Amino acid sequence: MILKIDHLGIAVKDMMEARRAYEALGFRIEAEHDVPTEKVKAAFITVGESHLELLEPTDPTSAIAKFLEKRSGLHHICVLVDDIEKSMAEMKAAGAHLLDETPRIGAGGCRVAFIHPKSAAGVLLELKQA
Amino acid sequence: MILKIDHLGIAVKDMMEARRAYEALGFRIEAEHDVPTEKVKAAFITVGESHLELLEPTDPTSAIAKFLEKRSGLHHICVLVDDIEKSMAEMKAAGAHLLDETPRIGAGGCRVAFIHPKSAAGVLLELKQA
Repeated sequence: MILKIDHLGIAVKDMMEARRAYEALGFRIEAEHDVPTEKVKAAFITVGESHLELLEPTDPTSAIAKFLEKRSGLHHICVLVDDIEKSMAEMKAAGAHLLDETPRIGAGGCRVAFIHPKSAAGVLLELKQA
Repeated sequence: MILKIDHLGIAVKDMMEARRAYEALGFRIEAEHDVPTEKVKAAFITVGESHLELLEPTDPTSAIAKFLEKRSGLHHICVLVDDIEKSMAEMKAAGAHLLDETPRIGAGGCRVAFIHPKSAAGVLLELKQA
């Protein structure tokens, strides 16, 4: 079951500049930390029950660095689910193309999995179990 | 004050195909209606306190049609604010570039205003007052 939007991933070239922009808009940056598995640093902004996640690559081989070669801005939607294996099995059975066969470990040690944009009208969709 | 993410606008070329994709992923499409002011039809999906809004252009001159010439998928983030004039004035005073000088009427008769992506790290940001 899909519970809520956990976060929106926003790819940024320059974290300091992005932080200043979001602070000028009245958002409050709450924490910044490295996510070595994704080769990014991430800054979190709470908005209601969800977060905006500013993502700056720390390595040219990260998926965010490759995205930034084309454009900056909205990169993915992450939804919180109660049972990631069950959601993945149901989506797969319904014909969706999953980028992960089994959950992998994402930021904060949570289990996550990605759905291919072609199965979500061009949106890169992440599932996360808390 | 920014209260929550109201919705995420997702530009789609083919509403029926997008609906089928999101239904296969376990999302439930709740309502579809025309938004003549934006020249789109919109289908809403509730996710927690927010919505996904699938947007298909009904006219080649709509902003969504122009976006779809480049790509499909995530188009904008809309945040709910308690006082749109106050938010706009504060953002402008902090140096943000607003696309609207005064609020305009959006879907459902709400007052909305857009922030230029250059002021939000590449994200088209919409403010909405309920």
